[in-house]
Amino acid sequence: MVPPWIWERIVRGGLEEDLGAGDITTTAIIPRDSTGTLRFKARQPLVVAGMEAIRETYRQFDQPVDVEVLQEDGAVVTAGTILAIARGPSRVLLSGERVALNIVQRLAGIATVTHNAVESLTGLDTILLDTRKTTPGWRAVERWATRVGGARNHRFDLNSAVLIKDNHIAAVGGITSAIEAVRKIVGPTVFVEVEVDRLDQIGEALDAKPDGILFDNMDVDTLRKAVRLVDGRAFTEASGGIHPSQVRQVAETGVNAISLGWLTHSAQAIDIGADWESTDGH
Amino acid sequence: MVPPWIWERIVRGGLEEDLGAGDITTTAIIPRDSTGTLRFKARQPLVVAGMEAIRETYRQFDQPVDVEVLQEDGAVVTAGTILAIARGPSRVLLSGERVALNIVQRLAGIATVTHNAVESLTGLDTILLDTRKTTPGWRAVERWATRVGGARNHRFDLNSAVLIKDNHIAAVGGITSAIEAVRKIVGPTVFVEVEVDRLDQIGEALDAKPDGILFDNMDVDTLRKAVRLVDGRAFTEASGGIHPSQVRQVAETGVNAISLGWLTHSAQAIDIGADWESTDGH
Amino acid sequence: MVPPWIWERIVRGGLEEDLGAGDITTTAIIPRDSTGTLRFKARQPLVVAGMEAIRETYRQFDQPVDVEVLQEDGAVVTAGTILAIARGPSRVLLSGERVALNIVQRLAGIATVTHNAVESLTGLDTILLDTRKTTPGWRAVERWATRVGGARNHRFDLNSAVLIKDNHIAAVGGITSAIEAVRKIVGPTVFVEVEVDRLDQIGEALDAKPDGILFDNMDVDTLRKAVRLVDGRAFTEASGGIHPSQVRQVAETGVNAISLGWLTHSAQAIDIGADWESTDGH
Amino acid sequence: MVPPWIWERIVRGGLEEDLGAGDITTTAIIPRDSTGTLRFKARQPLVVAGMEAIRETYRQFDQPVDVEVLQEDGAVVTAGTILAIARGPSRVLLSGERVALNIVQRLAGIATVTHNAVESLTGLDTILLDTRKTTPGWRAVERWATRVGGARNHRFDLNSAVLIKDNHIAAVGGITSAIEAVRKIVGPTVFVEVEVDRLDQIGEALDAKPDGILFDNMDVDTLRKAVRLVDGRAFTEASGGIHPSQVRQVAETGVNAISLGWLTHSAQAIDIGADWESTDGH
Amino acid sequence: MVPPWIWERIVRGGLEEDLGAGDITTTAIIPRDSTGTLRFKARQPLVVAGMEAIRETYRQFDQPVDVEVLQEDGAVVTAGTILAIARGPSRVLLSGERVALNIVQRLAGIATVTHNAVESLTGLDTILLDTRKTTPGWRAVERWATRVGGARNHRFDLNSAVLIKDNHIAAVGGITSAIEAVRKIVGPTVFVEVEVDRLDQIGEALDAKPDGILFDNMDVDTLRKAVRLVDGRAFTEASGGIHPSQVRQVAETGVNAISLGWLTHSAQAIDIGADWESTDGH
Amino acid sequence: MVPPWIWERIVRGGLEEDLGAGDITTTAIIPRDSTGTLRFKARQPLVVAGMEAIRETYRQFDQPVDVEVLQEDGAVVTAGTILAIARGPSRVLLSGERVALNIVQRLAGIATVTHNAVESLTGLDTILLDTRKTTPGWRAVERWATRVGGARNHRFDLNSAVLIKDNHIAAVGGITSAIEAVRKIVGPTVFVEVEVDRLDQIGEALDAKPDGILFDNMDVDTLRKAVRLVDGRAFTEASGGIHPSQVRQVAETGVNAISLGWLTHSAQAIDIGADWESTDGH
Repeated sequence: MVPPWIWERIVRGGLEEDLGAGDITTTAIIPRDSTGTLRFKARQPLVVAGMEAIRETYRQFDQPVDVEVLQEDGAVVTAGTILAIARGPSRVLLSGERVALNIVQRLAGIATVTHNAVESLTGLDTILLDTRKTTPGWRAVERWATRVGGARNHRFDLNSAVLIKDNHIAAVGGITSAIEAVRKIVGPTVFVEVEVDRLDQIGEALDAKPDGILFDNMDVDTLRKAVRLVDGRAFTEASGGIHPSQVRQVAETGVNAISLGWLTHSAQAIDIGADWESTDGH
Repeated sequence: MVPPWIWERIVRGGLEEDLGAGDITTTAIIPRDSTGTLRFKARQPLVVAGMEAIRETYRQFDQPVDVEVLQEDGAVVTAGTILAIARGPSRVLLSGERVALNIVQRLAGIATVTHNAVESLTGLDTILLDTRKTTPGWRAVERWATRVGGARNHRFDLNSAVLIKDNHIAAVGGITSAIEAVRKIVGPTVFVEVEVDRLDQIGEALDAKPDGILFDNMDVDTLRKAVRLVDGRAFTEASGGIHPSQVRQVAETGVNAISLGWLTHSAQAIDIGADWESTDGH
Repeated sequence: MVPPWIWERIVRGGLEEDLGAGDITTTAIIPRDSTGTLRFKARQPLVVAGMEAIRETYRQFDQPVDVEVLQEDGAVVTAGTILAIARGPSRVLLSGERVALNIVQRLAGIATVTHNAVESLTGLDTILLDTRKTTPGWRAVERWATRVGGARNHRFDLNSAVLIKDNHIAAVGGITSAIEAVRKIVGPTVFVEVEVDRLDQIGEALDAKPDGILFDNMDVDTLRKAVRLVDGRAFTEASGGIHPSQVRQVAETGVNAISLGWLTHSAQAIDIGADWESTDGH
Repeated sequence: MVPPWIWERIVRGGLEEDLGAGDITTTAIIPRDSTGTLRFKARQPLVVAGMEAIRETYRQFDQPVDVEVLQEDGAVVTAGTILAIARGPSRVLLSGERVALNIVQRLAGIATVTHNAVESLTGLDTILLDTRKTTPGWRAVERWATRVGGARNHRFDLNSAVLIKDNHIAAVGGITSAIEAVRKIVGPTVFVEVEVDRLDQIGEALDAKPDGILFDNMDVDTLRKAVRLVDGRAFTEASGGIHPSQVRQVAETGVNAISLGWLTHSAQAIDIGADWESTDGH
Repeated sequence: MVPPWIWERIVRGGLEEDLGAGDITTTAIIPRDSTGTLRFKARQPLVVAGMEAIRETYRQFDQPVDVEVLQEDGAVVTAGTILAIARGPSRVLLSGERVALNIVQRLAGIATVTHNAVESLTGLDTILLDTRKTTPGWRAVERWATRVGGARNHRFDLNSAVLIKDNHIAAVGGITSAIEAVRKIVGPTVFVEVEVDRLDQIGEALDAKPDGILFDNMDVDTLRKAVRLVDGRAFTEASGGIHPSQVRQVAETGVNAISLGWLTHSAQAIDIGADWESTDGH
Repeated sequence: MVPPWIWERIVRGGLEEDLGAGDITTTAIIPRDSTGTLRFKARQPLVVAGMEAIRETYRQFDQPVDVEVLQEDGAVVTAGTILAIARGPSRVLLSGERVALNIVQRLAGIATVTHNAVESLTGLDTILLDTRKTTPGWRAVERWATRVGGARNHRFDLNSAVLIKDNHIAAVGGITSAIEAVRKIVGPTVFVEVEVDRLDQIGEALDAKPDGILFDNMDVDTLRKAVRLVDGRAFTEASGGIHPSQVRQVAETGVNAISLGWLTHSAQAIDIGADWESTDGH
């Protein structure tokens, strides 16, 4: 569950920039007491994500709008499915529509591409992980979307887990010293992972007893050898430039997890429409 | 030029969520006085956008980082080009890198796809417009990226221009009454456009003397007829579900402008790397 | 309609600075369970504006107050008219009263002076426009008040329309180049106006085909000549140091619009009182 | 001295709303490397107030502007006096000018009218006080302006002094009980004042030994009698609907202080111009 | 009464930092529709303070929680007393519990130690005052807790009263000039106090007729002499390094007030528990 | 390293509430051009923490102050040691002093008590952990202080590790199902700990293979048995109502870690003074 103040901040940012000093078209044309219905409809097959954004959008106006969510986050729906219905003052419905759509289309886009990648792993033990390659300010909701799509969440930020790269190792003189340095300031509740990009680094990495080893940008053959070298002595993760369509092939190397920046930095908006209907003759 | 407080807000949102209470890996491993250099490098051909985000990212830390921008926004560069170099404390360089990249990769992605679409229009008078289908909270910078890529900016928000749709017309009893209602509250500085989706609506629309007519979701043949019907009596715009690859074909109908939500809601992140190098032996 | 988050921000700023850590007089003296009624009353004839500020003020407290608005924004009322009645806990009613009044008195002051200026134009086609000379942070609500008073809104900000002045023209070598430069980055949805302060500039200005021409600080005779020179080939606007009492005389030159900074930077607060009455014997 | 974060908030509010996503006129027309000079000049005789707003405005841009203040707050200057000079990038100078002027014109307006009222008291002991009738969000700077003009500051907010009115007295059964109730929660550092509007209330008020007595809306004759009745046993203050032009007449009753809401809710903007000059031939 | 937006800010700060992108334990384990009851119970004898924080914590979630406060702020209760009961969705109850407790335990700790110190003064006229030695950002609520415990509030901030110390006196050449300088900018509503740390300073201090004299860090004998020297000609206050256990001894010198930084900077959290019970079989 | 924006927020909150509309004492008395020196001095032996708060306090004023930190965070110093020296405008030095001290005294208090507890563990392998029992809004800096004092950081928030309690287990039917439910949404980078308060729960807990087991509120004898039962098959942690003075005794049970809420919710402010000296004769 994403805390409500995060939805509030994202929706507010959208409404402030989209309405400015006020929506002049609806103010001028739509009567103040007109009421209507807005139906949010999937125009493609998709995995639902971000329905809370619709509720939150209309909560930020000062006139009550009734939002009925028909498909909860995580639902897999066909094109044409009504996802939610909003009923209330026409001015509010029309002024908020674009912001709600902009959020939901992006999050459902992420959930859908994630879902498809997870599906392609059926029958394998490999899990799919998201990354820190998210839209700044949107990490909580974008990773909610990957989770809803079936991926599991990687470390949320630089404060909650450790990933030791080449640069870090060079700076401190070796993987073992790097891990020792980390353990001096954090307790054992923090996961420590070492990144390697060549097979010959794996031996030293294992000697330092990290919780995990990340294989960066390895081709499938190298990766298979890497997994074999580790041989279960650490959690293994493949990362770097992997496209969703390649996920199964990578997983068949036996790696424990694949992390995929693509899910959040390159998923396209999915098509969701909002059909308005007056309920008072205006 | 995007005002500095907008970059500040976006970068701050990213840093707060990516660093949390502090980057434990660099704090533990990288010596406090270590210095280094970070080179931001294009890994694909691209149009530069958002270099200010790199400057702003490092401005938010309390130790000085020198950011040298080698390629300004709008530059068209080949893979391998160094875009910017940051020099300063290694801890700061490494802690800020991901946020800077997340912003620049998205904006350069938008600028690049926009540039390619604009290029495809060479020789025609049709202009390319962006839309309100932007990431909530990011409109100013995403539309800076479309402008840098060669598109022109459409109305920024619901407060700065009028777009009259079917629903509005129904509510007020006709296009003419709708435009009159609008003119009562805004001066002539505001652009008024009417949306039509069928050829038989064009006559009435023209009678009401709007500044522009938007053709929504018309196929190329219908669009050609629509442009001919208007015959220069209003500014014409094609919109709705157009993919960047179709832009030239649409433009050949003679329409004055094409607006493309795809530019901002579906452009993929472009690959930009950040290569770190110690400058003090650590 | 001003979006609710704008009222929220202005009211919050007022309450935070007026209550500080809490209203010690009411906390000490008024019993916690005392209830009362507060009547907001016009003490002069006025045009109502900003009633939403009363609702919003009491919404920000954590005990419910019932606010009944008897005169909506735009109503023209006589001295003695009750504008709104608030009923609820006495402590809340008394603690919020000053902030609500400070907002409403200013906005009704603006609406009233605007209304009188618009009335003085009866029978003429000239329209009255507001300007960017507003209290920083208050533009949306102050221009709501001018609109309620009968003026029409000019460009909201530096991002939504173009006004080319002497300095700009000098910088780029001529009016035509200035307009071309602008059109390269914004679409035709943006209004482009050129400012002139001498008659001999009008010819060149017209050649560049701007949407409008602004006559800055011209006396009435010069203005009449200027309007005649333009002869309908562009929208004309008079601006600069005009007092509300001079509006009709200026309008009789035939100019299309008059913009009046005075409406927002020099309108005086109008007298509105708040009469409290206990409803529980305290 | 007004703390810098207060100037920062007010200026930021103005810049955000005036620039939106960016000043399209200067971006399009003024070359990026053009530099210039902006001279802020008094166009009327005035008392300077708010020079810090000019400094702060240009501090919020990311390119350095040199602001030289020639006349500090409190200076009494003639029409034509240069108040400050800003030197820097032309785009920044022109984009920030309106916001800086909007602030300075209002504050100098307040300081000037205050100064004139204080001057009219020459030779008398009565002091001039400001009130809580300020623009919400602007209290600190508007009262800085009254202080600069020669008035002294009254209680800043509802938390820092006590003013007991009819309503309060009714609620608690008498002035003495009201003061006792207050003293139970605040120490003696808090000033306690009682408001009376009839002569027959003064006896009871004095019995309760308040720090001060406020005479609300009394005509000059009644006020004279009231002052005589108090006879130095409490600090006396006249308040309510007094115009700056009446101040001397009121003071001659012998009252210790006059508080004047007019200073902050009805002072008009004073005319200050900003003359731009290119320094690089553009 | 502490204004609601202050509770809102403090609670929000706590929830944002404690929940981050969401409470993974409850999201994963507790069913969405599970409901429960949370009982806040005193585990020590204490004085209640901050109950509003419990209400506010649960108000910030988007699912309704019913909070019943059984013991209002100021109640003196025994160990085992139920202070409040929250009923609602189990996920929300468990996610918010820690933040609510962190606030209430601190404020009740302050109220309790204050109450005990005030009790120790029974039979004496000396009052207990709090200070500006509060947790930054928490002053309003921490001083609400001291007031609830029976202390009275000293000046809230540097803007609402004057305390003249050695340094100030040196800078301006004497106590009398210091007080005159102050009176030039603030009205008589502001309390002016002079700090002395030696007996020989009292004569000059009294000559300047301050509202109060603060004796800094004097031992009890010296303090007794100081009070005698003042002899009722000014309000007297003892301050500096006094422990709550010494309060009675200090008061017996006859000083009017004792101010105690210890109340807010060193009071320990008091033990309050939150016992959860499912109400739906989960 | 605590990110600079966190210091900025805490310091700003303190300055806003302590200065209000401005420090009237220094404004009135201290000449604008007076300069001075402020020495922050330990008045007790202590462990330094929070020196950045002094730098940040003076960075928020608009006149430059030179802050020289003589003792970095983590230094163990004797009473009388100068920790930092600030040099600059006297007004700024004096206006900011209280806020800087309020922060540093609290953080050094936490670091000192933590250091002493860690010292008491000398020769044992048990580590000391902090908790989520921190001042809302202050977690990052308070846990920086515990780290500086020698403790290691536990999970930062509810989003970064899992702690399964009785309630959770009941809700989902057993420890194993609880852990499985968690693993479905988070990757293996998240630490999963189970809380037990009786010895008979340990067997089932171990079967579920958690990363750690937390023993809640066990006496030392029970704890010793619990550690023996686990026998190295999971990380063990003792928690609940432990006072710093008991730490060694608890550690001798062989438990891997002790978590101590006391460090942050009950550490007292440590005495640090700020001695001012004029450097210009004022």
